[in-house]
Amino acid sequence: MWQISPDLRLTGATGRDVLNAAAMTRVAICAPSAPFSREDAAAVCALAAAHYPGITLSFHEQCFASEGHFAGPDALRLGAFLDCANDPACDAVWFARGGYGAVRIAADVVAGLGSGHRAGQGAIARAKAYLGYSDAGTMLAALAAARIGQPVHAPMPADIRRVGGEAAVLRTLGWLAGEQGGLEPSLDETPAAAFNLMTLAMLAGTPLMPDLSGHVVMIEEVSEYLYAVDRLLFHVTAHLGPMGIAGLRLGRISDVPENDRPFGAEPEEMVRHWCARSGIRYLGRADIGHDTMNKIVPFGLATRRAGA
Amino acid sequence: MWQISPDLRLTGATGRDVLNAAAMTRVAICAPSAPFSREDAAAVCALAAAHYPGITLSFHEQCFASEGHFAGPDALRLGAFLDCANDPACDAVWFARGGYGAVRIAADVVAGLGSGHRAGQGAIARAKAYLGYSDAGTMLAALAAARIGQPVHAPMPADIRRVGGEAAVLRTLGWLAGEQGGLEPSLDETPAAAFNLMTLAMLAGTPLMPDLSGHVVMIEEVSEYLYAVDRLLFHVTAHLGPMGIAGLRLGRISDVPENDRPFGAEPEEMVRHWCARSGIRYLGRADIGHDTMNKIVPFGLATRRAGA
Repeated sequence: MWQISPDLRLTGATGRDVLNAAAMTRVAICAPSAPFSREDAAAVCALAAAHYPGITLSFHEQCFASEGHFAGPDALRLGAFLDCANDPACDAVWFARGGYGAVRIAADVVAGLGSGHRAGQGAIARAKAYLGYSDAGTMLAALAAARIGQPVHAPMPADIRRVGGEAAVLRTLGWLAGEQGGLEPSLDETPAAAFNLMTLAMLAGTPLMPDLSGHVVMIEEVSEYLYAVDRLLFHVTAHLGPMGIAGLRLGRISDVPENDRPFGAEPEEMVRHWCARSGIRYLGRADIGHDTMNKIVPFGLATRRAGA
Repeated sequence: MWQISPDLRLTGATGRDVLNAAAMTRVAICAPSAPFSREDAAAVCALAAAHYPGITLSFHEQCFASEGHFAGPDALRLGAFLDCANDPACDAVWFARGGYGAVRIAADVVAGLGSGHRAGQGAIARAKAYLGYSDAGTMLAALAAARIGQPVHAPMPADIRRVGGEAAVLRTLGWLAGEQGGLEPSLDETPAAAFNLMTLAMLAGTPLMPDLSGHVVMIEEVSEYLYAVDRLLFHVTAHLGPMGIAGLRLGRISDVPENDRPFGAEPEEMVRHWCARSGIRYLGRADIGHDTMNKIVPFGLATRRAGA
């Protein structure tokens, strides 16, 4: 597991020091959903080199493949992920972007890592952190459900495309370098997880859904009508309520399309409604979303271990 | 239960004759989701009067209420449904239109009909047919899950707005009058149910989801990107596979918005993929959709009972 012992925290050591005794943290990048561009990859590498020379980024060639909606066929995306996860030379796997597609390979990812695929290498995959959000949350969920590695909701290389997106990319690089400043500020002694609302809704009740009992669950959404957000909240709270989560936090609901008439309620009111209906504690806002301010949420108790 | 005995079928009697010894079939109409208009209601009533003088349509005043997205507040929509369901003078409840909102009242509908609300009238609600589709499928599901009445996937009054929509509205009126010609043509001795894909996805794994084991499940979708359809198919097949359904049939996937790149697979290929992954038999196409050709699917074995 990717974790920093409390002792090291007291001595001021960083996550990177623990991960790798050498000065270098190596990060493998693949694209389980939609394709990335070489230009954006070069920009992210240049940003990392300028600010975090101790981190090396390695974009898998698959990131730049394209077939229909996806960054290459299912088998190619699955193979690239397994290459990264099973690479003993790298410390973390970073998902290049979301965009839909991870769910087509997630079950095979778990089977590939958990059932003797590339025999003997399961331990290597389990020692890594896996970082991303949006559709990549499907990978985080599947890995969490199978208790493989340390899933982390975090900005992705694709955030470089946003205006001011360097700040988001640097936040993840900073966390990889052992900095704590990018963590979501409400994180405390309670285990947590963070998801895009639609992504979480599609996982609910499937074998890819992790056990979130006792967790603070943070949700965010982008580009969905408010009526669709309300519908998703029904579904997600109906699943999370019986699971016994510690509570729900609402991240940003952004870029809401204009409908032919106003919905009549704000997202926080909708969340309070569905939390009340499903017996879930509403805990307030979370500092996550599809934007440059999106903060980092290591799944489970990793933040406590990291001394946040 | 709304059903026609085989004996009556042999004598050529129609559903209306069985439902009501008098010549009149009375249909109460409410709007559990979005509001309807008086103009469209008048057009539907005129159409019914011209073609089916034996059917009287009674639009509940709530159909014309409006609050934000909905046809009035949750309590008003719930009350109107209970008024209709508990009215001993009417034989069927027809949902005016979809549009989102039914899921906010569906659990209370079941509690209201099943737990002594308006004491002694549960039997009245159980003797009725309930007709609609799209978001109204949430009502059909909740009623089916609670084994209340005869849910029927069928065109709604709102279909009058479509070009050529009279044919769709007349199809439901014809079924209410005992005609069999509007039934979905693949219906056979196997129990069936039909849903909008998004609506079904949101119900999956919640208390509103009926037991569809042994059923042919028909799905249709409108105005969703193909990547969203693929995502929904993962979710729905992950739930329906373990349930042991008899098979899946694909209705029309219409008005697909254009994405920034082609998805790369047609809906039927996507359905075959997810059926294979989840151990579900793919049975071919279904003649349902958000269009004027949308056919009638009585849930369960009603069609066999009706002699289809």
